[in-house]
Amino acid sequence: MPNRTVFFVSDGTGITAETFGNSILAQFPAKHRHVRRPFIDSVEKATHVAAEIEATAQREGKRPIIFLTLVNEDVRRILKESPHGLVLDMFNTFVEPLEAEFGVKSNHRVGRFSDVAKSEEYNERIEAINFSLAHDDGQSARNLESADVILVGVSRSGKTPTSLYLAMQHGIKAANYPLIPDDFERHQIPSSLAPHKRKCFGLSIDPERLAQIRNERRPDSKYASLENCRWEVRQAEQMMRREGISWLSSTHKSIEEIATTILRDIRPDRLIY
Amino acid sequence: MPNRTVFFVSDGTGITAETFGNSILAQFPAKHRHVRRPFIDSVEKATHVAAEIEATAQREGKRPIIFLTLVNEDVRRILKESPHGLVLDMFNTFVEPLEAEFGVKSNHRVGRFSDVAKSEEYNERIEAINFSLAHDDGQSARNLESADVILVGVSRSGKTPTSLYLAMQHGIKAANYPLIPDDFERHQIPSSLAPHKRKCFGLSIDPERLAQIRNERRPDSKYASLENCRWEVRQAEQMMRREGISWLSSTHKSIEEIATTILRDIRPDRLIY
Repeated sequence: MPNRTVFFVSDGTGITAETFGNSILAQFPAKHRHVRRPFIDSVEKATHVAAEIEATAQREGKRPIIFLTLVNEDVRRILKESPHGLVLDMFNTFVEPLEAEFGVKSNHRVGRFSDVAKSEEYNERIEAINFSLAHDDGQSARNLESADVILVGVSRSGKTPTSLYLAMQHGIKAANYPLIPDDFERHQIPSSLAPHKRKCFGLSIDPERLAQIRNERRPDSKYASLENCRWEVRQAEQMMRREGISWLSSTHKSIEEIATTILRDIRPDRLIY
Repeated sequence: MPNRTVFFVSDGTGITAETFGNSILAQFPAKHRHVRRPFIDSVEKATHVAAEIEATAQREGKRPIIFLTLVNEDVRRILKESPHGLVLDMFNTFVEPLEAEFGVKSNHRVGRFSDVAKSEEYNERIEAINFSLAHDDGQSARNLESADVILVGVSRSGKTPTSLYLAMQHGIKAANYPLIPDDFERHQIPSSLAPHKRKCFGLSIDPERLAQIRNERRPDSKYASLENCRWEVRQAEQMMRREGISWLSSTHKSIEEIATTILRDIRPDRLIY
């Protein structure tokens, strides 16, 4: 199966369309060349991209694949009629049946936010990112009552990227708090977490994988030794079990999968999308 | 136009599909109720969701909207034949024409990463997040040579969320560095940035908006005063112009829009997707 050039043409950033397009292309065993053309919001720019597609088709002797997310009818027509490509119109394919279902015309709005400075949803997302940063790695126990979720787990179990993802993608205020040897010796979760146990969610990890990750940071340390990693993980899991904190293993999961599981299980009240 | 219940049913996290579905639904002036059903990877789970959809349709007297991203044919069939909903099959709608175009069957792989622990692309993303965190707000000038992008701008111009977004979404190692009054008085960019000017990208911002954001943090300070904000922004823009650093105004732009513009202009060599 030959590799193709894939164009992502959008009147906005095209990020969502490209991410989504990638998951569709991942169904096929080929390495395609990706070309992004964001902010194509005029007939002039569209004509330019159409010429680029045409030139690519000529040069490669293979039809390019063209993912479109274009709201404006005139702009879309120029690319849709592209004679030398397979056009996948990601937007209109679904907007049309929805127009029929709802019995109204779509409003042809470009982008999710008309003006971010005035969007409450957008500002909440930025606030959540700032919150998660300020509450990374147990840096601050202040305002933990306003956290939506508090991730707990041993050092390097994946708490930080997961908290930032929850904030960025879902506007969730996610704090994270390390469980450290001191806590295990005291046989108690950190006292600042005790009043918020209901919001806690644990990340665990394979000790072997943990040792590997820690060794990249601090080679040959006690911290990174397999023996110590085994002890910490065992202690952390016992502690979470004792405290009734649900957890999952991050070893084979992406931050997207971890975040989705947390949202499904904790169901925070505030959830943007 | 009546509000509906919208189901997002996926065999993976469904995050991309939901984000994409949201941008389609934003074309219509209604507030829908969202129901996510991630990880639906068996006939049994699908049957359960189908019953839920049916019950919703009965209760509300309106057809639910159902976005599907399901790879398995048996699982999909159960939901596709849902009699009381409008089914939008986000996956198959595009996989089928691609199968025809490529002349091969798709591999029916669920999710972008088969096993994250072994995925180089995934590990690069996590590494980029760690890099961006370690290089937030000029915290470290070490390893700036391995940065893909260095964002510069006055305090609170949007550098931090943009860097984290670039790392998380695109696997880009994005450092960020504040431009502060000391730099303006010296009339020089920070010396650690000088060798890396080619990778620098500036964020500017409306002084009025900046004063508003800073006032939320430190009310009635000199730092937040409109007069000081005007001075800092003017100085920063002059400095970037003098140094030949391209920049944009973040005032009315989302982090997605800022990131897309940066990628289009800087074109970092490493770019995951």
